Amino acid sequence: MEPVPRRASARILIEHPTPLIDCGRHLPKRTVGETFEVGADIFRDGHEVLRAVVRWKAPGPGKRPWQETPLRHVDAAAKGVRWEGRFPVDALGRWRWTVEAWVDELASWRDEVRRKADAGQDDLDSELAEGALLLRAAAERAKGDARTAIATAADVVEDTTAPTRTRVGAALDPGLVAVLDAHPDRSRSVKLARAQELDVDPERARFGSWYELFPRSWGGLKGVEAQLPALADLGFDVVYLPPIHPIGVTNRKGPNNTLVAGPDDPGSPWAVGGVDGGHTAVHPDLGTIEDLDRLVATARALGIEIALDFAIQCSADHPWLTEHPEWFNRRPDGTLKYAENPPKKYQDIYNVNFDCEDWRGLWDALRDVVLFWVEHGVTVFRVDNPHTKPVPFWEWLIGSVRAEHPEVIFLAEAFTHRAMMKTLGKAGFNQSYTYFTWKYSSWELAEYVTELATGEEREYFRPNFFVNTPDILTAELADGGPAKFASRLILAATLSPSYGIYSGFESYEATPVQPGSEEYLDSEKYEVRNRALDGPLLPLVEQLNRIRRQQTPLQHLAGTRFLDTDNPALIAFAKQHEGRTVITVVSLDPEHIQEGVVVVPYELGLPPSFKAHDLLSGDTFDWRIGRNYVRLVPLEQPAHIVEIEVA
Amino acid sequence: MEPVPRRASARILIEHPTPLIDCGRHLPKRTVGETFEVGADIFRDGHEVLRAVVRWKAPGPGKRPWQETPLRHVDAAAKGVRWEGRFPVDALGRWRWTVEAWVDELASWRDEVRRKADAGQDDLDSELAEGALLLRAAAERAKGDARTAIATAADVVEDTTAPTRTRVGAALDPGLVAVLDAHPDRSRSVKLARAQELDVDPERARFGSWYELFPRSWGGLKGVEAQLPALADLGFDVVYLPPIHPIGVTNRKGPNNTLVAGPDDPGSPWAVGGVDGGHTAVHPDLGTIEDLDRLVATARALGIEIALDFAIQCSADHPWLTEHPEWFNRRPDGTLKYAENPPKKYQDIYNVNFDCEDWRGLWDALRDVVLFWVEHGVTVFRVDNPHTKPVPFWEWLIGSVRAEHPEVIFLAEAFTHRAMMKTLGKAGFNQSYTYFTWKYSSWELAEYVTELATGEEREYFRPNFFVNTPDILTAELADGGPAKFASRLILAATLSPSYGIYSGFESYEATPVQPGSEEYLDSEKYEVRNRALDGPLLPLVEQLNRIRRQQTPLQHLAGTRFLDTDNPALIAFAKQHEGRTVITVVSLDPEHIQEGVVVVPYELGLPPSFKAHDLLSGDTFDWRIGRNYVRLVPLEQPAHIVEIEVA
Repeated sequence: MEPVPRRASARILIEHPTPLIDCGRHLPKRTVGETFEVGADIFRDGHEVLRAVVRWKAPGPGKRPWQETPLRHVDAAAKGVRWEGRFPVDALGRWRWTVEAWVDELASWRDEVRRKADAGQDDLDSELAEGALLLRAAAERAKGDARTAIATAADVVEDTTAPTRTRVGAALDPGLVAVLDAHPDRSRSVKLARAQELDVDPERARFGSWYELFPRSWGGLKGVEAQLPALADLGFDVVYLPPIHPIGVTNRKGPNNTLVAGPDDPGSPWAVGGVDGGHTAVHPDLGTIEDLDRLVATARALGIEIALDFAIQCSADHPWLTEHPEWFNRRPDGTLKYAENPPKKYQDIYNVNFDCEDWRGLWDALRDVVLFWVEHGVTVFRVDNPHTKPVPFWEWLIGSVRAEHPEVIFLAEAFTHRAMMKTLGKAGFNQSYTYFTWKYSSWELAEYVTELATGEEREYFRPNFFVNTPDILTAELADGGPAKFASRLILAATLSPSYGIYSGFESYEATPVQPGSEEYLDSEKYEVRNRALDGPLLPLVEQLNRIRRQQTPLQHLAGTRFLDTDNPALIAFAKQHEGRTVITVVSLDPEHIQEGVVVVPYELGLPPSFKAHDLLSGDTFDWRIGRNYVRLVPLEQPAHIVEIEVA
Repeated sequence: MEPVPRRASARILIEHPTPLIDCGRHLPKRTVGETFEVGADIFRDGHEVLRAVVRWKAPGPGKRPWQETPLRHVDAAAKGVRWEGRFPVDALGRWRWTVEAWVDELASWRDEVRRKADAGQDDLDSELAEGALLLRAAAERAKGDARTAIATAADVVEDTTAPTRTRVGAALDPGLVAVLDAHPDRSRSVKLARAQELDVDPERARFGSWYELFPRSWGGLKGVEAQLPALADLGFDVVYLPPIHPIGVTNRKGPNNTLVAGPDDPGSPWAVGGVDGGHTAVHPDLGTIEDLDRLVATARALGIEIALDFAIQCSADHPWLTEHPEWFNRRPDGTLKYAENPPKKYQDIYNVNFDCEDWRGLWDALRDVVLFWVEHGVTVFRVDNPHTKPVPFWEWLIGSVRAEHPEVIFLAEAFTHRAMMKTLGKAGFNQSYTYFTWKYSSWELAEYVTELATGEEREYFRPNFFVNTPDILTAELADGGPAKFASRLILAATLSPSYGIYSGFESYEATPVQPGSEEYLDSEKYEVRNRALDGPLLPLVEQLNRIRRQQTPLQHLAGTRFLDTDNPALIAFAKQHEGRTVITVVSLDPEHIQEGVVVVPYELGLPPSFKAHDLLSGDTFDWRIGRNYVRLVPLEQPAHIVEIEVA
């Protein structure tokens, strides 16, 4: 037998609350200062008038009260059942929210009386007597003037000696309605079966300009610190350092990933651990932990976060191999298994065994690594290859760290199939690397960004568009020359709120280790380079970062809409946020002048004609709804980023 | 802090199981003899080979064992994560199912060895030693010949004196693989967090031809019984009777819904209850309960089910008004509130108060009404106006009745907004009335049926296309004449597996009570009519019902696809089921000859040319992929229903 419902009156249905990810198993994300928009189907049998609110509770110490704001029945005219509302999120951490709905019996009664009066029905004694009872109950709920006003209305409504018209008029009086709306009877309200949750991150989880550099090529941590004012002037928000830990000697890789290293070869920073320590040590060649502390502090004073690499793997010389041999994969003969993905081999590193008997000890140790650096002021972690580790591990680790430190941001360095990319976002990663590096044509870019901006994953997956990485020198860059670098830079900086470049990009570095490879020749992964902040692309970088900070539409992925151009070598897209509009047009052709039109659709809500101020060139164009001529010249005028001025 | 996972090894993710309605809150439906298709995203980190099965448990007395069948990784080639499988459902009631997945460590190991061997790696001693251990463990799980075969293979694989090639060959031997696949290690398998459920109904819940008649116009229950052989010959599966209970005298409605009834006026059958009893009594003018028992038995012997009306409302003379006055809505002055939907009034009936203090008593009494008729052999109920009663009530009532009597079918007479229509299906109704009566154009029909056939609601909402009802004489019929009747009949009978006609339709009855009204003039709702089974449309009805029984594609909504015709007056659609194809072309124009083409798309999987055998005319056409000429003549050749013969 079916269980008997708790009470007979739960006739209101609240269904399909949104956003809802995997039935509430995972949380949507927002950043501090954003607005959280919710919706639900709310209805019941019969014709009663319903009211609904969204209720929410901010995280934080002490008892934060539940607050609420009304939901609006958005498709009532179309006989739909959708209600929507929103609330601002102004604090880091896990928020809770729910939907509550109830029958407004007085409004339902007014509706009945109005329909009958409109139909000319004159005998309404019984209906008015019923309403007077409801009014008396409402007066009980009110105080002071409100109570008096309601009671006075009840007197008129129940006065059988007065004309029906007078009594109906009193019942429907707008002033009375306002007073009654302020004193609802919610004693039989219905809520969602389960309150939902929401993760609120720092703004940097959504919007930021990243610069990646190997400290050893810049004079160690102190050398990096010396570059910070210049990086801040360039408009960077995050400086990301590959692993800064001691590097193993055993099986150390030589230049260009050769198997034998010479005595002066520094090895790959991702071969973590040596005689000087493991994941919580600083490589002596880079400096000391105090240097790191100072670097973090100086950066923060300049508005920059230092991002560290979290790479869960150990060189043969990592202390854990002797302290915790049980944490590693072994062959039956007792030898350790180095990392590999046949036929690829990573002879200089060993993976931990997440399934080992002491997995709890291993997991705790890994979390403690993160907490160690958090204690040293680091709040951003770029996580190496998270898709080769258990998803439940990440959910636990990120959840554990952020429960105490909701300011911490984890960027997933995942390049794998789509389901795993999404799942890592659901597991808690605040940002992720993307397929952007391999999306070249206007169709590919539009399809990919549209999916990120409008698919369900927009709720939990935030892209970070790196134009290159130490592992990814795409054929497009290798073959395209400076104009292609400019084009890709503009695309990354305007398509995605978070984007990044790995040093060398600004100097047009583009020689692969061999034709067709995505590895750089003489890769910095295995060698020390002499770096300086002097690449010819830096003025454009500075300009783009400045534009990004001024133009809030560029700081959000939502509201991105691709526009027709009549020329596949031109890609155009509008971004809108809180009444502001930015339209970007980029040439994908590094060799030829390209002409076309940007079709501004009516749906953007712009006036018939308007000023389009190009933030790159300073020019101002007269644009309009419809077709607008554009002409882009490689390097000279690689793009328009126009701010729409509405008179 | 996040909870620590139960065990470290739960690395496999099983997500997005389908079908899943409202996160498992509601159940998908199937009928006995169908196949239930399930799917899930199944993946984990790393490159291990996964295996998965769907497991299911049939309902029924005694302990039914869990059974299982493998899931197939359907998009492996596209690097997707989707797995699919199916199982047959051959018993009524609630089935349970889940998905189970595990790592096939031996297959993963073979994959590694194969990739390394293919890459020319010769030193595989360590890998082969690891595999030998896995093989020894597999031998432990096996018995007899299998154990011997695996152990023998392990001997070769671990024999370091043998050539690597020989050892690898033994590891990859297809015969060994087959034996190993039959002895999986599922000790660390993962299941869905919660087993899912599935409702299996009788075939009649999906497929059936309905005929509605008022027994009082056919000589009462005995008179109806006399008609059953003819109705069976016409191919009807269900005969639906409006309420057969005593009718109230107080405020009885007269002809054409007038407020004053004459002494001989019979009243509306929906004004249930009088001095002779309420919802469990038979109106004396119609016969006795024994007559009903005999009617049900005779019908069943002819393959027909008798459907009763379940109308939860009471005339002023219903026994419950005196026995249970607390079950009804009252005004403050103590008077009962009759039913109304301002400005419409139903002065002859009173609604029950589902929220009254004794709601449990009321709900139980209503369920007992259904169980009373179930005890008398009735298994089909047409429920009057369910959308004005609480949804939780229906979920409880239908669940309660079907837990003991899963053969019972509830048809929802709901004509209301879409969300409520769907919700009633989710709450348990096995069928529903639809908007078909008001869908006229080819575009409207295609859009509506496509949504029913392909939207999520196909899992729980089954349409029953009535061409007319005592309440619905559409303007299209009133104005269209006999050819329109034929057209609508063919559409209903071929578009929807369940369809119905209300008597009079076959005689082209089409006079509204006033122009523009959907009420019939001299409606049978308020008068006794002299009915006979002799309408001129009956030969077409008989032919359609015969075709429907022969052509399984017409018995399913899934697999319906609309075809282009180049003429909006012609609607064409293909239905496919288990390798059979039926294409229907219907003219929507009752006045003119219409010509056009039926575009048979490549996607139907038919050969380039084929025979199209018209089941209405007996003609055979040579049709092909692409455009096929058709010409339809009102009344003479109103449609083609062609069975595709593939040589």
